[in-house]
Amino acid sequence: MGEPVGPLAPEVPVFRELDATTAARISTEAKALQPWLVDLRRHFHRHPELGWREVATTARIVEELSQLGYEVVSGKDFLGDTPRLGLSREPIPGEGDTGCIAIHDTGRPGPTVCLRVDIDALPITEATTGHVPADAGYASTVDGVMHSCGHDGHIAIGLGVARLLRPMLAGGFGKLKLLFQPAEEGVRGANSVVAAGWMDDVDLFAAIHLGLGVPSGSVAFGVHGFLASRKYAVLLTGRAAHAGKAPEEGRNALLAACQMVPGLHALAQSSARGVRINVGVLEAGKAVNIVPEKARFELEMRAETNDALDRLERRCLRLIASMAEAHEVEHATVLRGRSGAWRNPNDFVAWASGIDRMLGTFPSVLTDHPFGAGEDATTLAGAVDRRGGKAGIIVLGADLVGDHHTPEFDFDENVLWQGVQLLTALTAGAMEIV
Amino acid sequence: MGEPVGPLAPEVPVFRELDATTAARISTEAKALQPWLVDLRRHFHRHPELGWREVATTARIVEELSQLGYEVVSGKDFLGDTPRLGLSREPIPGEGDTGCIAIHDTGRPGPTVCLRVDIDALPITEATTGHVPADAGYASTVDGVMHSCGHDGHIAIGLGVARLLRPMLAGGFGKLKLLFQPAEEGVRGANSVVAAGWMDDVDLFAAIHLGLGVPSGSVAFGVHGFLASRKYAVLLTGRAAHAGKAPEEGRNALLAACQMVPGLHALAQSSARGVRINVGVLEAGKAVNIVPEKARFELEMRAETNDALDRLERRCLRLIASMAEAHEVEHATVLRGRSGAWRNPNDFVAWASGIDRMLGTFPSVLTDHPFGAGEDATTLAGAVDRRGGKAGIIVLGADLVGDHHTPEFDFDENVLWQGVQLLTALTAGAMEIV
Amino acid sequence: MGEPVGPLAPEVPVFRELDATTAARISTEAKALQPWLVDLRRHFHRHPELGWREVATTARIVEELSQLGYEVVSGKDFLGDTPRLGLSREPIPGEGDTGCIAIHDTGRPGPTVCLRVDIDALPITEATTGHVPADAGYASTVDGVMHSCGHDGHIAIGLGVARLLRPMLAGGFGKLKLLFQPAEEGVRGANSVVAAGWMDDVDLFAAIHLGLGVPSGSVAFGVHGFLASRKYAVLLTGRAAHAGKAPEEGRNALLAACQMVPGLHALAQSSARGVRINVGVLEAGKAVNIVPEKARFELEMRAETNDALDRLERRCLRLIASMAEAHEVEHATVLRGRSGAWRNPNDFVAWASGIDRMLGTFPSVLTDHPFGAGEDATTLAGAVDRRGGKAGIIVLGADLVGDHHTPEFDFDENVLWQGVQLLTALTAGAMEIV
Amino acid sequence: MGEPVGPLAPEVPVFRELDATTAARISTEAKALQPWLVDLRRHFHRHPELGWREVATTARIVEELSQLGYEVVSGKDFLGDTPRLGLSREPIPGEGDTGCIAIHDTGRPGPTVCLRVDIDALPITEATTGHVPADAGYASTVDGVMHSCGHDGHIAIGLGVARLLRPMLAGGFGKLKLLFQPAEEGVRGANSVVAAGWMDDVDLFAAIHLGLGVPSGSVAFGVHGFLASRKYAVLLTGRAAHAGKAPEEGRNALLAACQMVPGLHALAQSSARGVRINVGVLEAGKAVNIVPEKARFELEMRAETNDALDRLERRCLRLIASMAEAHEVEHATVLRGRSGAWRNPNDFVAWASGIDRMLGTFPSVLTDHPFGAGEDATTLAGAVDRRGGKAGIIVLGADLVGDHHTPEFDFDENVLWQGVQLLTALTAGAMEIV
Repeated sequence: MGEPVGPLAPEVPVFRELDATTAARISTEAKALQPWLVDLRRHFHRHPELGWREVATTARIVEELSQLGYEVVSGKDFLGDTPRLGLSREPIPGEGDTGCIAIHDTGRPGPTVCLRVDIDALPITEATTGHVPADAGYASTVDGVMHSCGHDGHIAIGLGVARLLRPMLAGGFGKLKLLFQPAEEGVRGANSVVAAGWMDDVDLFAAIHLGLGVPSGSVAFGVHGFLASRKYAVLLTGRAAHAGKAPEEGRNALLAACQMVPGLHALAQSSARGVRINVGVLEAGKAVNIVPEKARFELEMRAETNDALDRLERRCLRLIASMAEAHEVEHATVLRGRSGAWRNPNDFVAWASGIDRMLGTFPSVLTDHPFGAGEDATTLAGAVDRRGGKAGIIVLGADLVGDHHTPEFDFDENVLWQGVQLLTALTAGAMEIV
Repeated sequence: MGEPVGPLAPEVPVFRELDATTAARISTEAKALQPWLVDLRRHFHRHPELGWREVATTARIVEELSQLGYEVVSGKDFLGDTPRLGLSREPIPGEGDTGCIAIHDTGRPGPTVCLRVDIDALPITEATTGHVPADAGYASTVDGVMHSCGHDGHIAIGLGVARLLRPMLAGGFGKLKLLFQPAEEGVRGANSVVAAGWMDDVDLFAAIHLGLGVPSGSVAFGVHGFLASRKYAVLLTGRAAHAGKAPEEGRNALLAACQMVPGLHALAQSSARGVRINVGVLEAGKAVNIVPEKARFELEMRAETNDALDRLERRCLRLIASMAEAHEVEHATVLRGRSGAWRNPNDFVAWASGIDRMLGTFPSVLTDHPFGAGEDATTLAGAVDRRGGKAGIIVLGADLVGDHHTPEFDFDENVLWQGVQLLTALTAGAMEIV
Repeated sequence: MGEPVGPLAPEVPVFRELDATTAARISTEAKALQPWLVDLRRHFHRHPELGWREVATTARIVEELSQLGYEVVSGKDFLGDTPRLGLSREPIPGEGDTGCIAIHDTGRPGPTVCLRVDIDALPITEATTGHVPADAGYASTVDGVMHSCGHDGHIAIGLGVARLLRPMLAGGFGKLKLLFQPAEEGVRGANSVVAAGWMDDVDLFAAIHLGLGVPSGSVAFGVHGFLASRKYAVLLTGRAAHAGKAPEEGRNALLAACQMVPGLHALAQSSARGVRINVGVLEAGKAVNIVPEKARFELEMRAETNDALDRLERRCLRLIASMAEAHEVEHATVLRGRSGAWRNPNDFVAWASGIDRMLGTFPSVLTDHPFGAGEDATTLAGAVDRRGGKAGIIVLGADLVGDHHTPEFDFDENVLWQGVQLLTALTAGAMEIV
Repeated sequence: MGEPVGPLAPEVPVFRELDATTAARISTEAKALQPWLVDLRRHFHRHPELGWREVATTARIVEELSQLGYEVVSGKDFLGDTPRLGLSREPIPGEGDTGCIAIHDTGRPGPTVCLRVDIDALPITEATTGHVPADAGYASTVDGVMHSCGHDGHIAIGLGVARLLRPMLAGGFGKLKLLFQPAEEGVRGANSVVAAGWMDDVDLFAAIHLGLGVPSGSVAFGVHGFLASRKYAVLLTGRAAHAGKAPEEGRNALLAACQMVPGLHALAQSSARGVRINVGVLEAGKAVNIVPEKARFELEMRAETNDALDRLERRCLRLIASMAEAHEVEHATVLRGRSGAWRNPNDFVAWASGIDRMLGTFPSVLTDHPFGAGEDATTLAGAVDRRGGKAGIIVLGADLVGDHHTPEFDFDENVLWQGVQLLTALTAGAMEIV
């Protein structure tokens, strides 16, 4: 799953200082983009789309990037025939071919820098009263779908960086990749991005998430405590039989599932931190008088380290396979989501903090911030790290109204230009743009 | 559930001989009804309705009965506020107020005789080729609903009996009740009929079912081996919690259900015959990362005797209640269907066989026929038996194409008049009509 | 397990009539043995030994048989290296090499006839008051062991037959085998007898059991309804670990067993008759703070037919193996007992009834007697049947005080000579002794 | 359980400085006791006794204390009729009435100071080669029992303190209690000590444990991370029945236990630290063909805080009670051991460190030492703390050969006088002895 990353590259230096003049220029230009950023963000907020279904969202992004003169890869060309984790159980046409990547190669030897933002919304119905987007007329127009995690802001930031950087790329060294990743919710899309090879040449990777408890005016570079997780769907197929007349002819998929669940729960006891198992959904059987032929359940495993999660996953999958055998039912396990443990490395933290000091924007820089949740960017960061590149996931402080993933969620739009400024500056540093 | 039956009545003689002349007259008149019976049957076959939803079916039956001059009780007056077992999970308006009863009191002292037919169809899509109803143009016009058990024929027979008997009731003794019962499938409707008190004064009860492996030209009076069953829906409500951050805050309804299922299965071992337990449907949980708050499952219990089933039911319900307590989840159990064990008594068999010999219709009379399934009429027969009345459930032989409850089901329409003749003759005998 | 039986032999006629004079002589001589039979029975009653441990019992039997001039095979020569089912968990020296077989070949061509009695006692403490053996001074002298099933009587009958037949064997045709089988309780010993080949040449097999609800003066030839069963010990071996410090290092054999038990119970639902599963004993773990490394349980399966039992056994063993795999524990299953379904064939019943009429002893002969329990003789009878021989298991009526397998059990000793007479007469008939 | 502690006392100052002269005198006298301490320790090492069975051990302790002139409470007077946790399943006479307390009241107003040592050994067979106690001739003389945790040393230290302090008690203020606690292993005895009221007037409590990874020459005052635990035995009583003939008559205690175990395991998932559940022992059933009437299992729960453990205990006990109800079996839960979470308070650490500096014995004083296991002294310390007194549990450094609870365990006897010196000095300080 998303594992194959090319051979280790010779290490390319990426942590380069930023010129003070350039820093000042970036600040000025980023601030000037703010009205445009707000417009963009509100556009995407009005038109939220669920993960793997971001068709219109992607079309607009591609349009903006193309106008700016980037080479853009999208549609079936973007993720090809890589596996898509966690597609809908009844997919719609076009599902799974969303998201895009913009590329610009300076033609001069240097690092490949990849910036990533995520673009999907959530199955939440937006609040209609006492809620700024509703009052200001940019609330979701799609019933039951809402940008309640801030990815609308992320898209705006990503496009802002694209716009700000474009003229600067006449100079500098190396190659820029701007990744607009689909299906972050459920930690699904990054797996396909890695499998499609987009991380194979990346020397520096940076992703950004706004909010998450960090207030406006702060930024967290020393981020750690991303929780590793795996999400599976498990399908069991037995044999139906009349429960009264010939129960022994049946192979009971419902019963098999019922024995798996406590067996799985019992695997959660561990001296490793954060080990969790949850069977969150179970559906089995069709009629009260038939031995159930089919069962389907969804399983999530978590741990604070990739090693602990790998061990747990092996035990869970073995238990499922053998218990299916015990009950004489067929089984299939489908990976539907995964995220890795992650900790931004010290050299990334030090470098990013240095660039930030040049900009002078954030009064408060956090160097020990536990993320405490999963993030699909960990899969991208982990892939870059495995090939010898550098990676960091930054939390951009933003005052919130309502919590993430609630109908009342909203964020301080003033941080949009700050995000543009920061990512642009990091890129300019790494690519030696002056 | 449908239990309350009035105090034991003094026994009223019901097993009276039939006059030969009357027998001959009934035969002649019944045969003459055959074209009308076929038309009626085909009408109901074209317009099948599921149990508790037989609105149009009931309307037509009421229309026929009223025209014949019967007092008819229908709509909300028929079953009042008695519990309705196994209503749809999302009921439609009018659901549950179907079926009716036609009454005629001779005004002369004598037995109350109740004849019952059932009127509902099944959620089966009718075959379209190589199938007489399709070829002859009277196949179901309702997608996914079909009279594939023969209840369309039962309605026709019931109306035929109503028509044949009506003029004869100028004579005779006692009272006649013609019951058109809703929701037989799932063994649901009879429970409400009993609860509404319709059996409280019945001295003789007869029901009829066509087909069931008995060929045209045969009739079974000595029927036994009706299986007792109970069907329950079980609802569990716990407390949702984030499965990663605070699993101990959750009260896991899915896990509770998973422990109940093997516990229930283990109760099926018994020296009593035919004891069975099946959990045929289970649905729980909403999201993979949430401790599941809700679970719902459907449970069926069976046994060959009412006693064994009663004991089993007590143990199952106790296990569910206590295991819910063990997992700190709320529970509710909803009875959705029930049928009783039953064996036609010897005096009924002897009497009916005698009447039948007067008619001379059936070359073959079966006196030891195991039914081997559940029938909602057992609930009615059992209620009549408990008050001291007499009851019998008759299988009317009919050659079949395709088995009951299949898309190819069809039956020999020629038996319709035979059913009318038989039920009319039994009634005439019991009510001393000459 | 005890399966290999030689190739089918050409059928040898065994159901021959008995000469009236011989019948009379057998009656007279059997009656004369009664005081000796009572002495013998009381001797064995005083000195009961558990199955596979009948060392002194066997020695005494061998002594008697040898004095009568039979060739006797005993000790290690009797069962060789065949598997012994259900040995004690801590066997004592000599355990498993008990029982014997006496052989006499007439040298003249004819059938091989095998009579079988069983010789083991039960782990029951005999009653000391209000109990004939105690009052008459022949109660068990071994604490906690008692002949409370009547096998002491069976031994006496077997030796009586040996004594009565010995001089008659100067005449007749064929070969006689008198089998004194060990370890009938727990249905264990017959398996080894078959495996050792003792049934490979048997044309007629007869076994006898006294009591079992049949009163003195009756005999049952038409016996059926022997229940097939298998008994297994299951051993699970996981890995111990400190339950507080490193639970994930453990592989929990106790938990594995706990999931197997309800899984096994759920396999008992069947349309086949008499299907049962019981886990009767479970022992697991050593200390409250250690993940349990070991578990051991004992499992019994039953059914009314060998086929149903075979299917059940396959499912149970598969469930155990796969659930062990699911919990990552090693498993071993050890067969500890088995019995087969059996029904005495009609020709045996007819022939034995005819011989019995010659004797005139039993006023009442039962031809439809359900046994309703397991008997180790079914394994012997089944083996003889599979090779084309004839077999029957006879219940010798005997009034009882107390039930079988209780401390108060005692039987009417007067039936001893009747048993001798019957078995001798059947043998004399089959071997054409005059 | 050991809960009732008297009303809060007005706080009595206990953390008083020690006079330098007194400190010097204590050092000198403690060193002089070393040969006597070694003799005592070796005596107890030769004669180890398991918890609640320390009969000879207690007799010797009482003898020593009485000779020194202390009032000693022992035998039935010591713990009265308080519950004794974790008695043997087949107790021997005298079991449960071991341990003692020596008391001396100065008659002058001041604090009540209680020092506690523990006196029981473990069910371990001592090593016989390459092991100092074996080579030097003082190995255990009791097969299968060994002082492999160092409690023999604790007794010697306790008696040394008694001897050293006795003459000093002519001066000073308040009251001294020297507690020789039985049954520390399994965290059992302290519960009875509290229930008997011995902690009700204690103003300062100190306990000591040697070894535990702290080397000779070090002492740990800042000790924390004691794990809270509860240990229960659970007894289930159902109803036996013949598993073949009437399984529905049985109430299966084995099956009930088998469903409880995974249910209990599933309660271990928690965001609280160190939550663990283990069913370490399970025994059920008597015979393979009987529905098991009895089951017994042992359960341990752990957590890092008393609150988390209390919540867990409530859920476990509720699950057991309700699942017993579900399976219609009686249940009884017997608390067999308990320990509390604990952290030595800062003022105790500061004061003890100060006294230690006066003595100058230990080059290394640890102020942040996680204990990482359970200790019965936490129950005593907790009781003192609840009434407003001060308490501390000290780890006395001692080089070890072999780990605690192994056959090779041995410790550096040179630390004995150091322990005497330290406890004497703390007491002298608190009681203002000069």
